[in-house]
Amino acid sequence: MSTTCPIPISDYPTVTLAHGGGGTLTHQLIEKMFRTSFSNPLLDAGHDGAVFSVDGARLALTTDSYVVRPLFFPGGDIGSLAVNGTVNDLAMCGARPLYLTLGMILEEGLPMETLWRVVQSIQHAAAAAGVLIVTGDTKVVDRGKGDGIYLNTAGVGVLAHDREIGPARIQPGDAILLSGDIGRHGMAIMAVREGLEFESEIQSDCAPVAEPVLALIEAGIEIHSIRDLTRGGLASALVEHARAAAMTLEVEETLIPVREDVQGACELLGLDPMYVANEGRFIAFVPEAEAARALEIMRAHSVSGESLQIGVVKGRERAVVHLKSRIGSLRIVDMLSGEQLPRIC
Amino acid sequence: MSTTCPIPISDYPTVTLAHGGGGTLTHQLIEKMFRTSFSNPLLDAGHDGAVFSVDGARLALTTDSYVVRPLFFPGGDIGSLAVNGTVNDLAMCGARPLYLTLGMILEEGLPMETLWRVVQSIQHAAAAAGVLIVTGDTKVVDRGKGDGIYLNTAGVGVLAHDREIGPARIQPGDAILLSGDIGRHGMAIMAVREGLEFESEIQSDCAPVAEPVLALIEAGIEIHSIRDLTRGGLASALVEHARAAAMTLEVEETLIPVREDVQGACELLGLDPMYVANEGRFIAFVPEAEAARALEIMRAHSVSGESLQIGVVKGRERAVVHLKSRIGSLRIVDMLSGEQLPRIC
Repeated sequence: MSTTCPIPISDYPTVTLAHGGGGTLTHQLIEKMFRTSFSNPLLDAGHDGAVFSVDGARLALTTDSYVVRPLFFPGGDIGSLAVNGTVNDLAMCGARPLYLTLGMILEEGLPMETLWRVVQSIQHAAAAAGVLIVTGDTKVVDRGKGDGIYLNTAGVGVLAHDREIGPARIQPGDAILLSGDIGRHGMAIMAVREGLEFESEIQSDCAPVAEPVLALIEAGIEIHSIRDLTRGGLASALVEHARAAAMTLEVEETLIPVREDVQGACELLGLDPMYVANEGRFIAFVPEAEAARALEIMRAHSVSGESLQIGVVKGRERAVVHLKSRIGSLRIVDMLSGEQLPRIC
Repeated sequence: MSTTCPIPISDYPTVTLAHGGGGTLTHQLIEKMFRTSFSNPLLDAGHDGAVFSVDGARLALTTDSYVVRPLFFPGGDIGSLAVNGTVNDLAMCGARPLYLTLGMILEEGLPMETLWRVVQSIQHAAAAAGVLIVTGDTKVVDRGKGDGIYLNTAGVGVLAHDREIGPARIQPGDAILLSGDIGRHGMAIMAVREGLEFESEIQSDCAPVAEPVLALIEAGIEIHSIRDLTRGGLASALVEHARAAAMTLEVEETLIPVREDVQGACELLGLDPMYVANEGRFIAFVPEAEAARALEIMRAHSVSGESLQIGVVKGRERAVVHLKSRIGSLRIVDMLSGEQLPRIC
C-alpha cells in the first residue's frame, strides 16, 4: 500500500464538514482513501451494506453512526433515527433486519433524563421495526469533546433469496419508483435549527421501510436495485445509480412529490429538495412490466402509501441523470458538491 | 416500560466520566437502564457479544466504540485498537472473527494525514487478524464537538462448535488461566498523557488473541468461560465471573505478572495494575484436569506465550474474589468504583 496520503494535502489539508455531507467530498474520501485501503469483494460491491454467506446462511451487515443535531426533532430523535437508519440499510440489501448493536458515545454532563428519553426511543423504534438490540457499548468523553450523544448501530439481517440487488444490475427500460414525498427529514431538522415557523410543523419521515421492500421480494418482483434517500437525497441516489450502471436515467421533476411546507422551507434556505435527506423514503428500479404490480405492493404499506413512478432508465448513452422540468427542458442532475446540511443524521 | 428514569436523578443528574470507565457506575447504567429497556435473551446473556443462529449458521455479533486519547501511543493507535478490540470480543464468544464494520466520527479540522495514518493502521491490523472491513460510515462533526477521531467497529464471527461459553458456566475446581502480564495498555497511555519517562518505553499489549482461543476450542479443551481484560482490568473480569456464577474465586497475587516499568508507573500514579486495562490479555476458566494442556496450547502462540495459572474457582460459599497477598493474607477484590482511567480505549 502507498504511504502517500491519497487525498492531495494541498487541496484538503484537513477534514471539513463537507467530507461528511454525503456529496462529492464524501465520495472522494470513501473512494480514494477507504475503498482502496480496505479493498475486498464485499466492500467493493458498494452497497449500503455487505452481503455474504456463512455456513449456508445468506446475511447482510451494515453500520451507521448518528450525530444529528438537535437530538430531538419533529417526527423523531437520534434514537429512532439510529434504529430506522440501520434497519433501512439492511432492507436496501434485500435483507430482513434481525439484530442491532448499539454503541453510545456520551458527553460528560449529558442530563441523565436526556439519555433516558433516547434509550426509550430506541426501545420503541426497535420494537416497531421488529429488531432486537443484542449487544452494545458505552463510552463517555470529556465535556466539550462530544455533543450530548453520538450513536452507532450495526445491523445483521438475513436474505431469504439469492437474488443480486445493486446499482450495477439496473437495465435500460427499468421503471424508477419513489416511495413517497421527499425532503421532510432534512427540512424538519433545518426548520428547528433555523427557527422557521410554518402553519404546521414539518415532521421528519423517519420510519422503517423494510416491510414494503420485503413484500416486493416475497411477491417475486424482479428488483434490480433499491436505495434509501438519506444524505445527498434523491439526486445523489439517482446519480450513484447512473454512474454505477453507466446509464442515463430520465426523471420527471413534476412527478416528484414535495410537500408545500417543505418546498417553502427549501426556498427560504436556498436548498433544493432533490438533495435533502430523507429517512423513510427509497427508490426501486424494476422492469417496466412489473412497475404497476410493484407500486400496488408498495402502496399497501402506509410508509410507502404514496409510491409512484418518477422516471425510467434510458440506456447506455451517458452516465447521467436527466431531470425533465415543468416546462419540458432537460437539466443534468449532479452530485452535491460541498456541504449542504451538516449533521442531518 | 416505566417512564421514570431508572438511574436516580438525585444521585446522578448528569452522565459523568465514571459512567464510561468500566467500573461500578458503568455497570449500574448498563444493568438499570440499558438491559431493562432492551431486554431479550441474547442481550441478557451478558457476554462480550451476542451469539445466535441464522439458517443453521451459529454466529457472534459484537461492537465497541473507541475514544482513546491520545490517538497514537506506544504499541498501537486508535485504529489497531478498534480492530483488535472487536476481534478479541468475537474470540471471547468462541467465534472466528470474519467481518468488521467501521464507523468513523471525524472532527472538522482533523489533519488529513492523521486520518490516513489511522486508516493504514486499521488496514494493517485487519490483515494481521485475518478479518475484512466490509462496510462503513463516515460522519464529520463541527470543530470542538469531537476529539479528532472516534471509531466504532462491529464484528461478525462464526462459531464452529455448539459449546456454551460464559461466566455462568464456571465450576468449582476450575483453573483460572491468564494469558500474560497485565497493565501494559493502560500504563502505555497514561505514561504518554502524564509525560512519565522510563528507561524503556511502556508498549501497549494491543494485539488480536483469537488464534490461541480458537486453538483451545479446536483442541477440544472444555472452556467454561473466557474474558478479555479491557476496561476495569483483571480485577473487574474476575469480579464479574464471581458474581455471574455466584462463586468464590481465589487468586494468588504473587503469580500475576506485572512488568517492573508498569508497576513503577502504577505506583507513581497511585493505580493498581489489577484494574488497569489490557488489550491483548484474557483469562480462561477450564477444568483443573485440562489446565496443563490448555496452557501448553496458549503458550504456543506468541500473544499468549507467557500464559500461566493464577488461581482456582473455590465454590459457592460467597460471590467474591479473594486475592492471596505476598504475605499470605486474603483481601477481597471489588469492582472499581468511580473512574480510574478515562478514555483508555
